[in-house]
Amino acid sequence: MPDPHSPSLPPATQVAFQGEPGAYSEQAIVEYFGGQVQPVPCSAFEEIFTKVSQGEIGLGMIPIENSLAGSIHRNYDLMLEHDLHIVGEYHLRVRHCLMALPGVSMADVRRVFSHPQALAQCQATLKRLGLEPVAQADTAGSARLLCESGDRRSAAIASRRAAEVYELEILAEDMEDNPANFTRFLALSPQPLTSEVQQGIEYKTSIVFTLRNRPGALFRALSVFALRDIDLTKIESRPLPGQPWEYIFYVDFAGHAATPNCAHALDNLREYCYTVRVLGSYPRHFLR
Amino acid sequence: MPDPHSPSLPPATQVAFQGEPGAYSEQAIVEYFGGQVQPVPCSAFEEIFTKVSQGEIGLGMIPIENSLAGSIHRNYDLMLEHDLHIVGEYHLRVRHCLMALPGVSMADVRRVFSHPQALAQCQATLKRLGLEPVAQADTAGSARLLCESGDRRSAAIASRRAAEVYELEILAEDMEDNPANFTRFLALSPQPLTSEVQQGIEYKTSIVFTLRNRPGALFRALSVFALRDIDLTKIESRPLPGQPWEYIFYVDFAGHAATPNCAHALDNLREYCYTVRVLGSYPRHFLR
Repeated sequence: MPDPHSPSLPPATQVAFQGEPGAYSEQAIVEYFGGQVQPVPCSAFEEIFTKVSQGEIGLGMIPIENSLAGSIHRNYDLMLEHDLHIVGEYHLRVRHCLMALPGVSMADVRRVFSHPQALAQCQATLKRLGLEPVAQADTAGSARLLCESGDRRSAAIASRRAAEVYELEILAEDMEDNPANFTRFLALSPQPLTSEVQQGIEYKTSIVFTLRNRPGALFRALSVFALRDIDLTKIESRPLPGQPWEYIFYVDFAGHAATPNCAHALDNLREYCYTVRVLGSYPRHFLR
Repeated sequence: MPDPHSPSLPPATQVAFQGEPGAYSEQAIVEYFGGQVQPVPCSAFEEIFTKVSQGEIGLGMIPIENSLAGSIHRNYDLMLEHDLHIVGEYHLRVRHCLMALPGVSMADVRRVFSHPQALAQCQATLKRLGLEPVAQADTAGSARLLCESGDRRSAAIASRRAAEVYELEILAEDMEDNPANFTRFLALSPQPLTSEVQQGIEYKTSIVFTLRNRPGALFRALSVFALRDIDLTKIESRPLPGQPWEYIFYVDFAGHAATPNCAHALDNLREYCYTVRVLGSYPRHFLR
């Protein structure tokens, strides 16, 4: 588990996530904050941003990219629409668990409920076990459905947390065909992490910038980092529909925006770009 | 509709896609090839790659990125595992249609079947219409279910093509809350498009390369394009789980790999990278 980002986090802090109790986002909150916070389910990503912006809930935890499915552009859009700051990151290893009512054995199970993407990620395993996949709106909701229905011929694929929440028994772990399944989560707060750079912490900074895509424009933008030996950990371009020559870029780099070297790079970048937005500097969590 | 990539395409050519008849991938085939080919449904992306590699089916059509949901890394992985060539691209505007059995009116409908992602993309519209979303494994399968069940109190959200395939009537178009919803598809073939560069066609080339992420390594790699005035249209880094210092990069650039300028750039790039793979050069389709 990574060091929680702030030793000053009040123990009663609420953290908003999208989904039902038992969602993978809640699993990420539990692993990242270590159980000292209260996860609060929200029905949509927008709700997280609104409630955290208004101070109704202390922090938000959002998925931003998955190693198999890519970046969640919608959450980048919401970060640009709101004025929250990234204060932490966490790479959750997505472990799909097969769960059923207490006392049900693998031999009893015929059907498996889950979100179509989770079912697709477990396709080979389910086929080997001879289980019929049945689509549901989400993983945690499948566990809840099982809990409420009393159905002893069915199982659900969801997070370990969902089994705890709905008092189900885990029949098998690591159901996913490809173990290289990670989701990166970001912790969001109305206030940035202290601008004092603490010694002994490796920071990462996330920024978004827009460029008119002339040949070499990106190269010039990236020169501000390369010429200062700043290591990029992510770069992604996103075309703007309807504006074929304009691009948004998502860049993460190693370092804190308040250090002189990074601050100079950002000043320099602003000379070359339409817009530059610093989303936050926070302790880096290495993908294991 | 873009110019089909090859005037020499035999009319009976089969094109493999993932999903059921009526899937958005089939809609993309119809719009891109103009109905002169036969779409062939496959149950998994792997099946497309295997059947096209073995010559069983002439071409494949795969989604590679969506403007809201990001890049489909799984299909990049499959391109690296197989030896197919990109011969075309198409940006499909994802228009979610609400459809029901013939004669059913909007006032009759209570529930709407679709894939959870499609339902989520139409959330505000469904709420406004007072319709209850019900998750299914996929969009086209929801249309088929409706067709088979004779259910006159339910509707499905799927492509226009699905309404044609399952003889349903479209009650409403453009159900999606955000119209900036595009999926980019790639046409794949066992043979590359002719290496002769045709005048009057704007080409794009897709490559994948791997770098050890020292500060400045990416900058040096991109210099091979910038110093030759080659315009990048996409760049995306992808961390390799378990190897925190190594990255795969997906880059698309304007131009054909067989022109001297681009060929020099690629030769130069090979000096700096572990691996460089050219996935194909093909006519560019501008995102409107």
